[in-house]
Amino acid sequence: MRIFGIDPGYAIVGYGVIEYNGINFSVVGYGAVTTNAGEEFSSRLDCIYNDLTTLFRKYKPDCVSIEKLFFNTNTTTAIDVAQARGVILLAAKHFDIPVFEYTPLQVKQAITGYGRAEKRQVMEMVKSFLSLSKIPKPDDTADALALAICHGHSSGSIYGKLSKGDTKI
Amino acid sequence: MRIFGIDPGYAIVGYGVIEYNGINFSVVGYGAVTTNAGEEFSSRLDCIYNDLTTLFRKYKPDCVSIEKLFFNTNTTTAIDVAQARGVILLAAKHFDIPVFEYTPLQVKQAITGYGRAEKRQVMEMVKSFLSLSKIPKPDDTADALALAICHGHSSGSIYGKLSKGDTKI
Repeated sequence: MRIFGIDPGYAIVGYGVIEYNGINFSVVGYGAVTTNAGEEFSSRLDCIYNDLTTLFRKYKPDCVSIEKLFFNTNTTTAIDVAQARGVILLAAKHFDIPVFEYTPLQVKQAITGYGRAEKRQVMEMVKSFLSLSKIPKPDDTADALALAICHGHSSGSIYGKLSKGDTKI
Repeated sequence: MRIFGIDPGYAIVGYGVIEYNGINFSVVGYGAVTTNAGEEFSSRLDCIYNDLTTLFRKYKPDCVSIEKLFFNTNTTTAIDVAQARGVILLAAKHFDIPVFEYTPLQVKQAITGYGRAEKRQVMEMVKSFLSLSKIPKPDDTADALALAICHGHSSGSIYGKLSKGDTKI
């Protein structure tokens, strides 16, 4: 099963693509889509849409795992992150890729076994799971890989059986 | 100038299309895009994108006027509204239609001359401005027409000169 993890944003969209055979994870690719702060917001959304469709075409993932949003602080930024996330969901829909969402707590739980783990600990576990020589940068990319691993653990097998806690959207 | 007003949402997207010659407004069309609560959220976004592109193709607007979002209450719904709004902005971008946003206060001010006007009063003024026999339903449609009128007033002329308060996004 090829999982495309996404850490949503409007300035940086982290992505990480992994292959999971039900036992082991391997990295297929990762990086970040970035948009220019000087551009109109609509153009930034268009850039995200275009770059993601290019990546979906390239990697042909079986599913997308994306962070669920909560608005606690900085609602101005949060609105724009949500608008970008809508465009990301649309891009996945246009490629008929099923999307699953996870809370940060679910991701930490899946990666470290502890919902209140430190960010650094999650990053180290991502590096370890994927046998990487160093933690991928920017953090958004490492977060995206964590989301992909989380979905692998949650789906439990190459047949994508859903376990409790999965939310297909 | 043909203005396409949009009241963003994920269950109902109100729209109203008006022609403005710098003096008078006339209605070209209005209605609402609705999505099915039983469908996956990604499918609802896709429905909004598809219906809006159909409407843009049909009405060939010169610009879009859309409500600016604020998150004060019910943040769960607000996230989904913002996600839908992102898709709406993308659809406009795909047709190279410039988008302008206005706060509810700006709309009320433009329609009634008073930022704290009652909703009913705004609706009555929309009906009057557009010489309609009754207030369009649902409210989202009337709100979309109000946004279109607001942009007409704000742009001031058929040449689309921007006045203070306009925000092109």
